[in-house]
Amino acid sequence: MADLVTFGETMLRLSPPAGQRLETEGELDAQVGGAESNVAAAAASLGTDAAWLSKLPANPLGRRVVRSLRSHGVTLDVAWDDSDAARLGTYYLERGADPRGTDVIYDRADASITTVAAGELDLSVVESADVFHTTGITPALSAAASETTTELLRVAGEADVTRSFDLNYRSKLWSAAEARERYESLLGHVDLLFAPIRDARTVLGYDDDAESVAYRLADDYDIETVVVTRGATGSLAYTDGEIVEQGVIDAETVDAIGTGDAFVGGVLAELIDGSGIDTALSYGAAAASLKRTVEGDVLVTTRAEVEAALNQSTDGISR
Amino acid sequence: MADLVTFGETMLRLSPPAGQRLETEGELDAQVGGAESNVAAAAASLGTDAAWLSKLPANPLGRRVVRSLRSHGVTLDVAWDDSDAARLGTYYLERGADPRGTDVIYDRADASITTVAAGELDLSVVESADVFHTTGITPALSAAASETTTELLRVAGEADVTRSFDLNYRSKLWSAAEARERYESLLGHVDLLFAPIRDARTVLGYDDDAESVAYRLADDYDIETVVVTRGATGSLAYTDGEIVEQGVIDAETVDAIGTGDAFVGGVLAELIDGSGIDTALSYGAAAASLKRTVEGDVLVTTRAEVEAALNQSTDGISR
Amino acid sequence: MADLVTFGETMLRLSPPAGQRLETEGELDAQVGGAESNVAAAAASLGTDAAWLSKLPANPLGRRVVRSLRSHGVTLDVAWDDSDAARLGTYYLERGADPRGTDVIYDRADASITTVAAGELDLSVVESADVFHTTGITPALSAAASETTTELLRVAGEADVTRSFDLNYRSKLWSAAEARERYESLLGHVDLLFAPIRDARTVLGYDDDAESVAYRLADDYDIETVVVTRGATGSLAYTDGEIVEQGVIDAETVDAIGTGDAFVGGVLAELIDGSGIDTALSYGAAAASLKRTVEGDVLVTTRAEVEAALNQSTDGISR
Amino acid sequence: MADLVTFGETMLRLSPPAGQRLETEGELDAQVGGAESNVAAAAASLGTDAAWLSKLPANPLGRRVVRSLRSHGVTLDVAWDDSDAARLGTYYLERGADPRGTDVIYDRADASITTVAAGELDLSVVESADVFHTTGITPALSAAASETTTELLRVAGEADVTRSFDLNYRSKLWSAAEARERYESLLGHVDLLFAPIRDARTVLGYDDDAESVAYRLADDYDIETVVVTRGATGSLAYTDGEIVEQGVIDAETVDAIGTGDAFVGGVLAELIDGSGIDTALSYGAAAASLKRTVEGDVLVTTRAEVEAALNQSTDGISR
Amino acid sequence: MADLVTFGETMLRLSPPAGQRLETEGELDAQVGGAESNVAAAAASLGTDAAWLSKLPANPLGRRVVRSLRSHGVTLDVAWDDSDAARLGTYYLERGADPRGTDVIYDRADASITTVAAGELDLSVVESADVFHTTGITPALSAAASETTTELLRVAGEADVTRSFDLNYRSKLWSAAEARERYESLLGHVDLLFAPIRDARTVLGYDDDAESVAYRLADDYDIETVVVTRGATGSLAYTDGEIVEQGVIDAETVDAIGTGDAFVGGVLAELIDGSGIDTALSYGAAAASLKRTVEGDVLVTTRAEVEAALNQSTDGISR
Amino acid sequence: MADLVTFGETMLRLSPPAGQRLETEGELDAQVGGAESNVAAAAASLGTDAAWLSKLPANPLGRRVVRSLRSHGVTLDVAWDDSDAARLGTYYLERGADPRGTDVIYDRADASITTVAAGELDLSVVESADVFHTTGITPALSAAASETTTELLRVAGEADVTRSFDLNYRSKLWSAAEARERYESLLGHVDLLFAPIRDARTVLGYDDDAESVAYRLADDYDIETVVVTRGATGSLAYTDGEIVEQGVIDAETVDAIGTGDAFVGGVLAELIDGSGIDTALSYGAAAASLKRTVEGDVLVTTRAEVEAALNQSTDGISR
Ligand SMILES: [Ca+2]
Ligand SMILES: [Ca+2]
Ligand SMILES: [Ca+2]
Ligand SMILES: [Ca+2]
Ligand SMILES: [Ca+2]
Ligand SMILES: [Ca+2]
Ligand SMILES: [Ca+2]
Ligand SMILES: [Ca+2]
Ligand SMILES: [Ca+2]
Ligand SMILES: [Ca+2]
Ligand SMILES: [Ca+2]
Ligand SMILES: [Ca+2]
Ligand code: NI
Ligand code: NI
Ligand code: NI
Ligand code: NI
Ligand code: NI
Ligand code: NI
Ligand code: NI
Ligand code: NI
Ligand code: NI
Ligand code: NI
Ligand code: NI
Ligand code: NI
Ligand code: NI
Ligand code: NI
Ligand code: NI
Ligand code: NI
Ligand code: NI
Ligand code: NI
Repeated sequence: MADLVTFGETMLRLSPPAGQRLETEGELDAQVGGAESNVAAAAASLGTDAAWLSKLPANPLGRRVVRSLRSHGVTLDVAWDDSDAARLGTYYLERGADPRGTDVIYDRADASITTVAAGELDLSVVESADVFHTTGITPALSAAASETTTELLRVAGEADVTRSFDLNYRSKLWSAAEARERYESLLGHVDLLFAPIRDARTVLGYDDDAESVAYRLADDYDIETVVVTRGATGSLAYTDGEIVEQGVIDAETVDAIGTGDAFVGGVLAELIDGSGIDTALSYGAAAASLKRTVEGDVLVTTRAEVEAALNQSTDGISR
Repeated sequence: MADLVTFGETMLRLSPPAGQRLETEGELDAQVGGAESNVAAAAASLGTDAAWLSKLPANPLGRRVVRSLRSHGVTLDVAWDDSDAARLGTYYLERGADPRGTDVIYDRADASITTVAAGELDLSVVESADVFHTTGITPALSAAASETTTELLRVAGEADVTRSFDLNYRSKLWSAAEARERYESLLGHVDLLFAPIRDARTVLGYDDDAESVAYRLADDYDIETVVVTRGATGSLAYTDGEIVEQGVIDAETVDAIGTGDAFVGGVLAELIDGSGIDTALSYGAAAASLKRTVEGDVLVTTRAEVEAALNQSTDGISR
Repeated sequence: MADLVTFGETMLRLSPPAGQRLETEGELDAQVGGAESNVAAAAASLGTDAAWLSKLPANPLGRRVVRSLRSHGVTLDVAWDDSDAARLGTYYLERGADPRGTDVIYDRADASITTVAAGELDLSVVESADVFHTTGITPALSAAASETTTELLRVAGEADVTRSFDLNYRSKLWSAAEARERYESLLGHVDLLFAPIRDARTVLGYDDDAESVAYRLADDYDIETVVVTRGATGSLAYTDGEIVEQGVIDAETVDAIGTGDAFVGGVLAELIDGSGIDTALSYGAAAASLKRTVEGDVLVTTRAEVEAALNQSTDGISR
Repeated sequence: MADLVTFGETMLRLSPPAGQRLETEGELDAQVGGAESNVAAAAASLGTDAAWLSKLPANPLGRRVVRSLRSHGVTLDVAWDDSDAARLGTYYLERGADPRGTDVIYDRADASITTVAAGELDLSVVESADVFHTTGITPALSAAASETTTELLRVAGEADVTRSFDLNYRSKLWSAAEARERYESLLGHVDLLFAPIRDARTVLGYDDDAESVAYRLADDYDIETVVVTRGATGSLAYTDGEIVEQGVIDAETVDAIGTGDAFVGGVLAELIDGSGIDTALSYGAAAASLKRTVEGDVLVTTRAEVEAALNQSTDGISR
Repeated sequence: MADLVTFGETMLRLSPPAGQRLETEGELDAQVGGAESNVAAAAASLGTDAAWLSKLPANPLGRRVVRSLRSHGVTLDVAWDDSDAARLGTYYLERGADPRGTDVIYDRADASITTVAAGELDLSVVESADVFHTTGITPALSAAASETTTELLRVAGEADVTRSFDLNYRSKLWSAAEARERYESLLGHVDLLFAPIRDARTVLGYDDDAESVAYRLADDYDIETVVVTRGATGSLAYTDGEIVEQGVIDAETVDAIGTGDAFVGGVLAELIDGSGIDTALSYGAAAASLKRTVEGDVLVTTRAEVEAALNQSTDGISR
Repeated sequence: MADLVTFGETMLRLSPPAGQRLETEGELDAQVGGAESNVAAAAASLGTDAAWLSKLPANPLGRRVVRSLRSHGVTLDVAWDDSDAARLGTYYLERGADPRGTDVIYDRADASITTVAAGELDLSVVESADVFHTTGITPALSAAASETTTELLRVAGEADVTRSFDLNYRSKLWSAAEARERYESLLGHVDLLFAPIRDARTVLGYDDDAESVAYRLADDYDIETVVVTRGATGSLAYTDGEIVEQGVIDAETVDAIGTGDAFVGGVLAELIDGSGIDTALSYGAAAASLKRTVEGDVLVTTRAEVEAALNQSTDGISR
């Protein structure tokens, strides 16, 4: 059974080539992506036995998600939606270039996952995991998805599975106030928290520096380990009363989408592998950095490549 | 002002290349298409002053529809939806090859057009037209779209604009019983009806041959002209107590989608131009045949090319 | 554990678009394909729990094979070759058009699989299968691959697993005389034989009609079921003293490569599902026919689509 | 009727992908572009009612120009050339990378526009405009195009339409001496001048700094407003005895072609909208900067995006 | 030195993919083609030492022609035009599908070759050839090209080089009357004539059957060998008082352009190789048939493939 | 006859687009490349009469190499391998982005060139050259290739042809110890040596600065001219007791592969043209810099472009 089990939405991602506009381009690159499955795939590329639970439309687009995640080595346990209203959420990605930001258009309302119920999923997969991971996107999708999130965290907790959560606030899905209320009820059921500093500030109202935010989150919600991510400034973790810091590994960015998910995947893979939080953060940093060099939501790599990035031993042409 | 005014939904159309599957293909061709705008574009390519009324999301996908239809020479009067829920309907097209049929997956629920109200549209555009055209797809979209259809037909009727309607039954949108009830209330407000023989049979319950169906539709609903289309068998029209028949012009099919719309566009363009129904049907047949040779929902052609197809003067290489 | 277990070589397949030549084209389509994994993937698409055993180079090309087969739903048990000489076999495919035939250039000598040994593979996967399948290509690859074939057939036999074999003679790999000698020693260890009529004639020297060939093969080698395939003429099976015949289902051919493998996959999936040979042959015919409509070695389909092809219910556009 | 009316040549633009050479590349990106229509399209994207007058060959290439400009929201008034000699000017663009410059090969001799006469165009479109704009490219094309330029400036002047002119010297079309003579006779009929500092120096012989050049141009030719552009140094305007300066907004350059035209389009759109020259220059700078981020001659944007660029509020990913 | 020497214009050929229109398609396939260089390339692929004389612009497009023909194994002797007016002729090809014909748009006026003079070319290349070949296109290009044609035929005649000529009437270049006058003055200087039956009728006024046309052409102009081509009906040759007939070899047509040139190339290659006219016609037929299976003006093949086509030994997949 | 004659292996090069991974990408760019033919092609683009000797498989891939090199203006003298084992070496190139290096996977074992013998090649081509060039890759390929290298150097030496050699150590082909032994026996037969500083250190054990390395190489092996290359630091040459230095010309790198070969090609072209080593090094630097701006192994350029790069006169857009 899988050591890492994730739960969330995976969408079809459609994007024009860099330098082209969504308004005009005739050919769109089609891939699939979603925060939780991105994490599972990144961890799988590092050797973790990783799984993903979700609900998908019983049509070619749903099967496309299955194919893609399987190709990344992720095990699936999927509830199939064969109702007339079944649909796969979609997002359109237009990569920017200064002074134009990257734009994401979500078209994910009423996707099949918004009707998911815990009873449709194989809970024994969760119970036998080392780590269960989901993000703040899932409860924002619908009442049913939110309820299922609660239920899966409960099942994981009862089975002594480490409960991992990434705040991942999406302002296009709900307001900061709505998110805060929901986060506050969930965070008491979390063992390992990934908190982007911006979300901790905007949504949860912490206006301290990163160290203090980590400490206060751990303290306020009784969370064993809190990882605060700070974009280009790197990350830090608070656990066992100590702070560990990790810088960013420089990368040429081909596609920034999924960087945070690759970071989480790298950290979880390494923790499951038995490393301490400091080593885990460094694998997260390397995974995040490699993600940037590849087009798509998902990190495609190997453990050897991650370790070479850590050792900065990758310059030049190898031949 | 436009001589032909159409009203309906236009969607983003996404399709893999022929011989590739939606489940696996990495690049999707992106175009836009919708029955009523396809008709407007086909008529415009024949020289008709054609317009399209609709409601679109105020985002790059909505603007893409505008760009595409303008490029086909269609004038637009669009209500912009800038709500959070604004979305463009989408459809996925997978072209088949025997023994596999062509498959269409609709993802059009809750598109912006489903919230359209007559008050959002410029009704003077309808009032100054020669012909107002819509299809049986529009009232199937939502109560609001259905009501607006009724209202626009009323406005057209009061302004003595010819009201044209294509049954265009879509089984993925509503049941035959639902469609029948709605059609029966609409057909009394129609002057020119396009009736695919299959729809007349499946939905309206006429089980006669095409001639009788045309006669009975005209009689039952007091419709001036009824055009019955029969796929490869060609079309016929009943008007003024007479039947006119038109065969199909053979074509090598690159893309069959939009063939019926090109036919209607050709017929309407020629009627607006002052021709009789027999000539109009022949232009419709040529337009339909040319549509098949081009990838996409929309006929891209010229009047000269349509006339060459009518005269069968197009063999070989011209150089 | 898997119900169908296959063993053989999978190669990188490189091909220019139709109408382009390998000598001149700047972009090659890259996929993976191999007779035995094609069979496993076709069966998996019909719902069979299918696996593939092989040996692959420990590099991106080897991982590409893994990704591709996983995406088709096939379980893998792969020995990794991390020697300096590790390589993935390659084949170049140039699709013809009359009067030019389709051309295949093999570049598969010394691929990693040519060094495979039974001890590198998980034999328990074979032992717990319903059917073990390989083809006449595998023993042609190298002495080691040939020996491993013998050994896996022995393991399957001892575990009462049905041993399935497709003659699949490849004249570019060995002479007819070499193949005949090897086939004669293997056929005594086979329970289900797929024999292309051309191979039975060219290699094994049977010059009868298909029925007699089936009977004689069953009799000469004491094989329970012999399926003889005859290209456009269809297939027939001899089993329990009876002949069952199956015609071909017409298809528009996009890519003929892998048609025979899809046939075998369809037959095996249906036999494993508990059907008789007559039903199994019909599923094989439908699978083969659908394969032709898709570019690539591998059938991408669903059970529903196969059954629609069987019922000829797929004409027109579904919308 | 249009508020901004432009006149000039639009060509087919053919270019290999970045990093490929015109000498070797098998697929060329095909678009259309021309200085004056680029200006009209940029202004239209900002909401201006913009039109373009020209002469085009009555063939698919001419119709392609019409389609493209319509898609950008530009209204057209085109004279169709159906003579045997009708042709669309073409230009080949090979984007460079240091130490290789970007190369443009013109193939525009004897294009249909070289035969244009004022009598072929709808002069009432010019008369009802707020601004009429053309550039120094148009009079360089042919005696007829030069004469028509004079005539349209005359018509605009008599109708009290602001006459806007961009020097746009093209050394591949005529010598500096020829250009100077022609410019000198035209500049007396101009109200708003865009003068690239390099052209003012090379062609008109002003060897001062930008401020002085602006002042002297205004003074020598009695021009109300003179905008001097200085590449990376930004622009400045002299009007009413005052100098206004505007810096460049940094951009990652995907395609530098059309940057100057987007600048002019932004300035004109904002002036027509009633803003002062300082605001107008800032919109020009934002438009120019956004143009660089998109492949093609033409700026594809929205007023909202331009304003976000002005407010530097576009960093990161919006989701 | 080359055994076959050709002289004529080669153009840039730009075409959208099949099923796309020149009016709308964003990516054009770019190749080069011209009747005489197509002949040289086809002969070279059969092993003939073939050369091409012409005049090209000294720019990337001219160099592209050189690269392409060299890649086909043709030796070049090219006069470089480095004048400001230097240009490469262009043609746009839009492949049709019934009921739409294939359309060619020439944009070749004033190409560099229109200024060619015999003095710019290396006449010793012509003098040392076995066969000199040109077509009726070349004298239609300009007075200079026409005069150079005369001069090269004279040089060839004096050196006892076989003078080969293909009528190749192009109605988009000159009228039938103009062509007739010119042909009549040239045909007296020809030893081997290729006469499409349509050209012989339309231009030269022969209204007989193909046999009589061949006989009469030979007789009227004292031509040793006359080959009449009749499209799908095949070809025939009159020589030494005898008629030889050759059917067409069936082909699936990917691209019909260049079929006639491949035929001429096959015939000339085989004649130069020492075969009689009957064998030569059969090689021409095979070359023409293979040309149809490949996209582009030029036959890409080998002698082995041509001979396989002649022997009809190419069915199925070779592996 | 050719002035520069090269000898070595040319491979098929397959690469995904930048930002894509070899493990996942569906379309691979296909080109050909090899150190010695890259040198010949670069020199040919500068006007040198350059040739390449090698052995190729008699199949479409071998013919592809011929086509490609001919298109670059290189003359070929090729031995054709029509054995069953004939194969073209292949290499896969995955371009990196920090922190991921560029990766090259060789699949070149047992390529046809590994069986080459001097007797299969036209030695008179070598004898009539000004310069004969090969690299340290060739003797690493096989005993036969190594022996042929020795033999060709001997033939060149006897004919007083300048013998040029580039160390070009490839760690994926042989160990440093093996290479050293072979280099030591070859260097006595070399007149002009190109020594990457890294190879001189790693393989030959020189641990001095570049100047000393050049001097010592010249001294130890009695080599007339030694050019030491130092990546971004530029190059220097030792000859006639003097050191000449040359910096690098800055370039935006599209594709770094082949940079060294372009440098050597530039140096050799200029030396053959009669320039001194200082001028030759500068042409080498310009050629190397231009190579980086173009995708592919081979520099596509002109002498004019190289000289413009030398004169830094290429900024901006030329139009
Ligand atoms: Ca497209
Ligand atoms: Ca496109
Ligand atoms: Ca893609
Ligand atoms: Ca892709
Ligand atoms: Ca693709
Ligand atoms: Ca390429
Ligand atoms: Ca592909
Ligand atoms: Ca190409
Ligand atoms: Ca494009
Ligand atoms: Ca192409
Ligand atoms: Ca792809
Ligand atoms: Ca490419
Ligand atoms: Ni595009
Ligand atoms: Ni397209
Ligand atoms: Ni496009
Ligand atoms: Ni694809
Ligand atoms: Ni892909
Ligand atoms: Ni191509
Ligand atoms: Ni191509
Ligand atoms: Ni290419
Ligand atoms: Ni190509
Ligand atoms: Ni190419
Ligand atoms: Ni390309
Ligand atoms: Ni396209
Ligand atoms: Ni494009
Ligand atoms: Ni397009
Ligand atoms: Ni791709
Ligand atoms: Ni991709
Ligand atoms: Ni593909
Ligand atoms: Ni693909």
